[in-house]
Amino acid sequence: MTVDRTRGVIAAQGFRAAGVAAGIKPDARKDLTLVVNDGPSDAAAGVFTTNKVKAAPVLWSQQVLTTGRLRAVVLNSGGANACTGPEGFQDTHATAEKVAAVLGTGAVEVAVCSTGLIGERLPMDAVLSGVDTAAAALANAPEAGLDAATAVMTTDTVPKQSSLSYNGFTIGGFAKGAGMCAPDMATMLSVITTDAVVDQAFLDDALRAAANLTFHTLDVDGGTSTNDTVLVLSSGASGVQPTGEDFAAALAAVCGDLVFQLQADAEGATKHVMVTVRGAATDAEAAAVAHTVAQDNLCKTAFFASDPNWGRIAMAVGYAPAEFDGSAIDITLNGVTVCKAGTKGADREHVDLSGKEISVVIDLHAGRGEATVLTTDLSHAYVEENSAYSS
Amino acid sequence: MTVDRTRGVIAAQGFRAAGVAAGIKPDARKDLTLVVNDGPSDAAAGVFTTNKVKAAPVLWSQQVLTTGRLRAVVLNSGGANACTGPEGFQDTHATAEKVAAVLGTGAVEVAVCSTGLIGERLPMDAVLSGVDTAAAALANAPEAGLDAATAVMTTDTVPKQSSLSYNGFTIGGFAKGAGMCAPDMATMLSVITTDAVVDQAFLDDALRAAANLTFHTLDVDGGTSTNDTVLVLSSGASGVQPTGEDFAAALAAVCGDLVFQLQADAEGATKHVMVTVRGAATDAEAAAVAHTVAQDNLCKTAFFASDPNWGRIAMAVGYAPAEFDGSAIDITLNGVTVCKAGTKGADREHVDLSGKEISVVIDLHAGRGEATVLTTDLSHAYVEENSAYSS
Repeated sequence: MTVDRTRGVIAAQGFRAAGVAAGIKPDARKDLTLVVNDGPSDAAAGVFTTNKVKAAPVLWSQQVLTTGRLRAVVLNSGGANACTGPEGFQDTHATAEKVAAVLGTGAVEVAVCSTGLIGERLPMDAVLSGVDTAAAALANAPEAGLDAATAVMTTDTVPKQSSLSYNGFTIGGFAKGAGMCAPDMATMLSVITTDAVVDQAFLDDALRAAANLTFHTLDVDGGTSTNDTVLVLSSGASGVQPTGEDFAAALAAVCGDLVFQLQADAEGATKHVMVTVRGAATDAEAAAVAHTVAQDNLCKTAFFASDPNWGRIAMAVGYAPAEFDGSAIDITLNGVTVCKAGTKGADREHVDLSGKEISVVIDLHAGRGEATVLTTDLSHAYVEENSAYSS
Repeated sequence: MTVDRTRGVIAAQGFRAAGVAAGIKPDARKDLTLVVNDGPSDAAAGVFTTNKVKAAPVLWSQQVLTTGRLRAVVLNSGGANACTGPEGFQDTHATAEKVAAVLGTGAVEVAVCSTGLIGERLPMDAVLSGVDTAAAALANAPEAGLDAATAVMTTDTVPKQSSLSYNGFTIGGFAKGAGMCAPDMATMLSVITTDAVVDQAFLDDALRAAANLTFHTLDVDGGTSTNDTVLVLSSGASGVQPTGEDFAAALAAVCGDLVFQLQADAEGATKHVMVTVRGAATDAEAAAVAHTVAQDNLCKTAFFASDPNWGRIAMAVGYAPAEFDGSAIDITLNGVTVCKAGTKGADREHVDLSGKEISVVIDLHAGRGEATVLTTDLSHAYVEENSAYSS
């Protein structure tokens, strides 16, 4: 089971995609993606941001997904269509209606995703004519899949796609996201497709399980966006009905590979940090401690400096919302246990954090709960990217 | 009632102080402070970090303060004495015993505070001989107070002291802290003295109330340190017993002035940001929303850029742990309501954030809860200071 990064959303049979420059972004970059499921099945599921301030396309897509069916997804970069009121919701609705008209289906079978600046209306002339351009470009070809993954990019520097074929069925998809990543949906947008024959209820369960294992473990900067959406569409075109275990594993593998690509492309990141917490009272408390360390700016600047300053990690662990004895914790950095039972362990000079990969393992000795969170460092480039542009 | 920043911990009658270079820091900077209460009263109170990983001096000082009495406080910079195990606690105990011997009192009347790198033992020879040096230098003079405020500095760039005389009694003190500031004790160390005649139980209540109004509202980077301590010592030397209202107001004024100085000297800060949340269901939820905005790196980098990007604020409000309707919120930046009822209000071009002071007012329209949090921006200098030095 190894993933392929050359084919994404069109890897599975029964799907066409396109990514075009519709003129939503001020420059000539691609900014509108269309993904179409040609069936025979149209089972679909979605996971959405938990932010109380939800973008119009999130409200729309949650509503249409109550049927468990989707024929198409239209996505735009260049504007989040969040905090745009009833008019913004009407813009999303009009976009779905346009896609439905072009494809000869109902708007209720069309999900919409947007990403970009919050608080501004979309240029709807560009969006609607872009749908026509995209529909004319739809193809089941690697170039079309790559265009689809490219047109959703904002501060992403590379398109991110992944696919996997296993026992006769295929799962593939793309993701975008480089900041505002965490803690409860660590990507901005992702569309996954599969030609497996799957029951909608199972598809929904499998997506939630995969998101917990993958997207929800990425925490770049603690910010949960207004637009986060992961959709999975099933065409059933392979005719193969996989076992639940096979499908769940393949879906998690594709989502996990997308998450590694998101971490690698996170804004300003110079380090890939994996924070694992063991020995917590519960898995939820382990995750809370891991997220606290991942979000702590003093820990993140120490990672940037390749500085094995475990005291900052002990400090962050100590204010995390979890029950444990502060004098019992162990902290291991890249394999060296620098803090043992709450006090100095091996000398910090033995730790080498100069490489790109940093592993932090914290044992709370308070139970059997475990969790891992992927994060990045806090670099000058993060400050530069996030202060130089209004995004 | 206006504060004076030229006299701090020695402003009140009955106190002597000193700050000396004991050789704890690798360079020749001052690093050991001694504050002595000559009475006649010795009522004292303290507020300590809520971090589960508590430094040895915090554990010691909490223990000795159960009596409600203190004759002296000894503080060192150059090392936090946190995560140092039983040996670190013995070091703190030995320091208190040394101060007690020099002053002719009991160790149980001596509080200890430390600040600096976590996870390393203190050079005890330097600490103990520094106590002798400091005891010889004790004086009730402005220079001695300034030395005391200086010797506790770590990455602070200026000493921070404040005092206030009112209706015959005086309160004064110093504070240090520039990072790892928040959310539940927004300073690293502060010692406040007063010559008012006050009951110990009232002193304790007044300190907690003042801390809630002042120290707890500062949130530089979301990190609660292992060493945070605020102590108040009363000599009763003025012979004046103020009304509860007068004392509480004066104490809050001095603490509040110290907090403004901490905010102004926060690591790498180029902006002073005041986040006020109104209309929350409860005051606690208002504080939770304000802290979420204050800690969000995308909001903080936008403040650094003088960018009125209210969408990032709406995003942060939306993931804060509080109950409200996301489509009801108003956001006002420096007096301009850029977000009204969850959507675009006045044009963001009308907002000027180019000055040093930034005011953010968020109305949730969900109740009558209110809170204000003081924070700073996330600048290149923050990353520089926190990655260049292991502190």
